[in-house]
Amino acid sequence: MHSVGQVEPHFEHFAQPLLLRSGACLPQYTLAYETYGRLNSRHSNAVLVCHALNASHHVAGHYAGEPRNLGWWDNLVGPGKPLDTNRFFVIGVNNPGSCFGSTGPMQTNPASGRPWGADFPVVTVEDWVDAQARLMDRLGIDTLAAVLGGSLGGMQALSWALRYARRLRHCIAVATAPNLSAQNIAFNEVARRAIITDPDFHGGHYIAHGTLPRRGLRVARMIGHITYLSDDAMEARFGRELKAGAPGYSTQDVEFQIEAYLRHQGDKFSEYFDANTYLLITRALDYFDPAREFGGDLSASFAAARCKFQLVSFTTDWRFSPARSREIVKALLDNRLDVSYAEIAAPHGHDAFLLDDPRYHGVLRACFDNIAREAP
Amino acid sequence: MHSVGQVEPHFEHFAQPLLLRSGACLPQYTLAYETYGRLNSRHSNAVLVCHALNASHHVAGHYAGEPRNLGWWDNLVGPGKPLDTNRFFVIGVNNPGSCFGSTGPMQTNPASGRPWGADFPVVTVEDWVDAQARLMDRLGIDTLAAVLGGSLGGMQALSWALRYARRLRHCIAVATAPNLSAQNIAFNEVARRAIITDPDFHGGHYIAHGTLPRRGLRVARMIGHITYLSDDAMEARFGRELKAGAPGYSTQDVEFQIEAYLRHQGDKFSEYFDANTYLLITRALDYFDPAREFGGDLSASFAAARCKFQLVSFTTDWRFSPARSREIVKALLDNRLDVSYAEIAAPHGHDAFLLDDPRYHGVLRACFDNIAREAP
Repeated sequence: MHSVGQVEPHFEHFAQPLLLRSGACLPQYTLAYETYGRLNSRHSNAVLVCHALNASHHVAGHYAGEPRNLGWWDNLVGPGKPLDTNRFFVIGVNNPGSCFGSTGPMQTNPASGRPWGADFPVVTVEDWVDAQARLMDRLGIDTLAAVLGGSLGGMQALSWALRYARRLRHCIAVATAPNLSAQNIAFNEVARRAIITDPDFHGGHYIAHGTLPRRGLRVARMIGHITYLSDDAMEARFGRELKAGAPGYSTQDVEFQIEAYLRHQGDKFSEYFDANTYLLITRALDYFDPAREFGGDLSASFAAARCKFQLVSFTTDWRFSPARSREIVKALLDNRLDVSYAEIAAPHGHDAFLLDDPRYHGVLRACFDNIAREAP
Repeated sequence: MHSVGQVEPHFEHFAQPLLLRSGACLPQYTLAYETYGRLNSRHSNAVLVCHALNASHHVAGHYAGEPRNLGWWDNLVGPGKPLDTNRFFVIGVNNPGSCFGSTGPMQTNPASGRPWGADFPVVTVEDWVDAQARLMDRLGIDTLAAVLGGSLGGMQALSWALRYARRLRHCIAVATAPNLSAQNIAFNEVARRAIITDPDFHGGHYIAHGTLPRRGLRVARMIGHITYLSDDAMEARFGRELKAGAPGYSTQDVEFQIEAYLRHQGDKFSEYFDANTYLLITRALDYFDPAREFGGDLSASFAAARCKFQLVSFTTDWRFSPARSREIVKALLDNRLDVSYAEIAAPHGHDAFLLDDPRYHGVLRACFDNIAREAP
């Protein structure tokens, strides 16, 4: 199994406004994307990969001169890998509102000539899926072999199955949920408050003020990170180990290894992630709730779906627990849809969807093998 | 069942330095405390109640002119209540480092004439227990009928059983743990970072700067609050309910009811709690680990204990789960100590220890009835 090797991002501009679920619209926008493998002559082997909170269109391979900057799902996507680029044409796309290349709050608002900042319109999972569908039009792909995503990416895969039921044959949704629980929203809200109340946030127009709300971003990332790891994984990796071996009796210095780790994660994140994007993406998570317009009836919301489904959850994921995936499986079964479901006994919590646990990758490999075998 | 009625705090000054576990010492200090009921002639009916993170010596009753400012465990302590003040002499004590009356970082450092602020020495559960034991000396109480506490208060009760094994007959530890897990420490650390990186914190000397790090305190409290409630309780109480009934599509305004609730909790807390106290108390939680000096062997650490034990945990408490209480029970059984344990099926998460669930209060009532029946 090899990497897809050196890759480069592409950019596609859309002059036609994108009408958003909020009623607002994005007057024009650019999507950054990457592709791996070759689109076959019948255009039937395309797989769209949707990203989660802090990822991008850079799914696999590396850029010229940056051999260690691997795509975020490089362990899954490549020649001979579970999502085999010898057989599939894989597309990674960056969503509007992001800070990694597609139109987002760090870029210039054509109406004002200044950065969008907090004026960037609120985007939802449905809006992203609509934007992705237009990119598929441009690429000449009428029907995707599959849409794949984990976490928030899984929500996009589910949304594809509802909004563009006849434009995908398979929906593969990993470590996801039919909506956020009150506790999920609560964690997002605390992270947002940390950012918004950072004096360097300036109501979201920090770029215009020449500042960055790094303090808030650090705290937001630390909170998020705790929810990505299982209690057990954290215990196994850090436990109560002291950085200096013995307590130094300080309230402000690092004492425990877990503190050093979290601070490091927060520092790193605050160097590359945009605060307004963090707000937008956590809000997209909060709002996703396909059952809402069906009075909370998730089964009714899936009546429009036509594709086959593969759901995967991880036993130690307490952010989007197996129970949440089972809700989706039940709703699909209520509609007599074709659904496979794997509950993987992995110790890593929510982060497991990014790791190469062999049982997990075995499930996805089998799934894509089946998709490749189907006569499209 | 009635309230203990109107009460008033007492203050006891200790001129003798308190040597702290860190090696530092508190040169002199005052403890705020309250008592309810009457000490009997043999001084054998005293029960000490230890407080958790954001509570104080005001355990029961109300102050003159403040009928609604009830003590934090008023539902448990009073005439005819499970901890019956007709039979027991109950003592609530505020720990050094607090912001509610005992010597703490908001008070004047006699060495400098300025508020202690961040210079207040780091205090541990063991230090608090030593200070409490001196107060018992002053009150003429050689042996306590019981020491009772929940959460961090439960750690103090356990510590009493180890440090003053012959000075208590019963240790009652509710919703507690033998130490914090990596995840517990992680949540504390994020809360501390929110406070410490608030520009109004000024290295902990905010009073000298005429500021208060309210932003950080708000975020800290919001994080803490999420961990006090069970996922299910939050879902049942707030779910995905929108404040305005329909989404307003905003990243900065309140959308979901859970957000309004958390913001309110954060705002309230930031008005009355001291940031340095928050750091000190979360650190005391982090450091508590009686097994550490026994190479991690919790059973060995309890070899010194002599009293009887009552442990209580709550099924939905994910901060200090029943598994953590069971670790303590096992260690006590390894030492052939007298231990009762109740695992209460309550939906409220960690907060359950403050509520008046009838099964929970029934257990404590039976426990105190037995203590009262014993010939001291």
